[in-house]
Amino acid sequence: MTDFKAHDKHFARRVRESFSRQGVMDYLGAVLADVGAGRCEIHLPYHDGLSQQHGFFHGGIVGTIADSAAGYAGYSLMPADSSVLTVEYKMNLLAPADGELLIARGAVIKAGRNLVIAKADVGVVKAGREKPCATLLQTLMTALNRPDLSPG
Amino acid sequence: MTDFKAHDKHFARRVRESFSRQGVMDYLGAVLADVGAGRCEIHLPYHDGLSQQHGFFHGGIVGTIADSAAGYAGYSLMPADSSVLTVEYKMNLLAPADGELLIARGAVIKAGRNLVIAKADVGVVKAGREKPCATLLQTLMTALNRPDLSPG
Amino acid sequence: MTDFKAHDKHFARRVRESFSRQGVMDYLGAVLADVGAGRCEIHLPYHDGLSQQHGFFHGGIVGTIADSAAGYAGYSLMPADSSVLTVEYKMNLLAPADGELLIARGAVIKAGRNLVIAKADVGVVKAGREKPCATLLQTLMTALNRPDLSPG
Amino acid sequence: MTDFKAHDKHFARRVRESFSRQGVMDYLGAVLADVGAGRCEIHLPYHDGLSQQHGFFHGGIVGTIADSAAGYAGYSLMPADSSVLTVEYKMNLLAPADGELLIARGAVIKAGRNLVIAKADVGVVKAGREKPCATLLQTLMTALNRPDLSPG
Repeated sequence: MTDFKAHDKHFARRVRESFSRQGVMDYLGAVLADVGAGRCEIHLPYHDGLSQQHGFFHGGIVGTIADSAAGYAGYSLMPADSSVLTVEYKMNLLAPADGELLIARGAVIKAGRNLVIAKADVGVVKAGREKPCATLLQTLMTALNRPDLSPG
Repeated sequence: MTDFKAHDKHFARRVRESFSRQGVMDYLGAVLADVGAGRCEIHLPYHDGLSQQHGFFHGGIVGTIADSAAGYAGYSLMPADSSVLTVEYKMNLLAPADGELLIARGAVIKAGRNLVIAKADVGVVKAGREKPCATLLQTLMTALNRPDLSPG
Repeated sequence: MTDFKAHDKHFARRVRESFSRQGVMDYLGAVLADVGAGRCEIHLPYHDGLSQQHGFFHGGIVGTIADSAAGYAGYSLMPADSSVLTVEYKMNLLAPADGELLIARGAVIKAGRNLVIAKADVGVVKAGREKPCATLLQTLMTALNRPDLSPG
Repeated sequence: MTDFKAHDKHFARRVRESFSRQGVMDYLGAVLADVGAGRCEIHLPYHDGLSQQHGFFHGGIVGTIADSAAGYAGYSLMPADSSVLTVEYKMNLLAPADGELLIARGAVIKAGRNLVIAKADVGVVKAGREKPCATLLQTLMTALNRPDLSPG
């Protein structure tokens, strides 16, 4: 894995503040477990409000935290006065997301000036044992001169 | 758009029952607005629990209802005693999902015996006017002889 | 399908000249059959140099002309002094590309200032009858102030 | 990276024979450089017949060898009497493929009974120095009881 250096030394605070403005993370119960330069980890404990028809985490919910983990990995490397937009993502589900906790680990693959390519690997923990359940590949765009402030 | 014929004449009831077992749809507030042979439409009204950092629908939530709309479009064509698995999906966000209602329209592109390829187009309604905000392309697998019953 | 208007009235000539500079199109035997504002059609007759192990068109070759058809659909809408870069694409194969001719039809889905989202539908013609064999979804970037000239 | 064990001890010969039946590999000038259990490496020297409009390797050609490298990584783990089908792939281009040699390294991510998820990382070598230029994520299907023989 490549090592990246953040241009903004306050990147971790900036990422945490943006995460806290994502109403959906609080509503789902997701926690920003860790953030570094070019990487981000999000945890999501299971509850019935996240389930698909067989009682596992819904694939879209897996995608939601994978999208955010990869997106914030990318945002950590962007300038202080920018915001981050997801252009697209693609996710393969590797196994049923059957367990008590999802862990999404985002990491930057390539940091360009306008576009950032990132990925996320998602594991599901069952009875204390983690196994891979999804992998996501994503394209982000840096919105320059548009600080990521709360709306209104 | 291709017209498809469902093998199972009770497909609509089967899809609605499976949808009602997805705890996440109820938790998010999503409604199964329509289901046909090879198509499915899901609506999701906005609330703060679905937002990203700028107050729009989170991209992962857009993906969640697009994944379900395309997935149930596919499931409508599968045998009565089967269940549906999402293999992978890819979604492009076309515009910020800024509005009071999301509408995801899923449609089957190709119905194979084991694999079904489907898509979903997502629009966002603001002040009564809908505009496209995302498009999703998806691969589904038919799990034969595994009826989609509630867990337990 | 949305109708688009090209800003550059000489877009068709510009696309045809760029196509003629793609050495790979000539080498494979591909022909630019048609170009319009926001759309492009490429034809590729079969020969053994395009085959996978069962004697059909190789999936990568299907992807090559689909990538170019969607890319030139997007390039038709870009400014005269720009060039086009493929950011990413995703393709589903719908059926074996078994036949004497491939036809890729590219079309723009969303034309943004920096990014253009496009798609291509690919059909294969066998014994004079065409059937769908692939669908591609693509993200393009406009490289402004970088005219698409021949290298050197 | 996970270690995989091939069920078929003659997997390397089987992959090499299938590769030699892909007419497109010979026509493009691609070489099967290495094959292991769950991995495969393909090399492709530059010539003008592989170029896009700026004189770099065409993105579709990058996709073609990445698709084959990932596909043969997957095929190495499949049963002796099977053949491999590409269901879909998604590729991000990370940098212009500007150089004298492309190297695609395919690797299996998850080997299921019916479906195999694989990836390929592609580097381009210029003046003896390699840098990453693309990454691909792919879904393969095992076609059981359909040996990969030459057509006819």
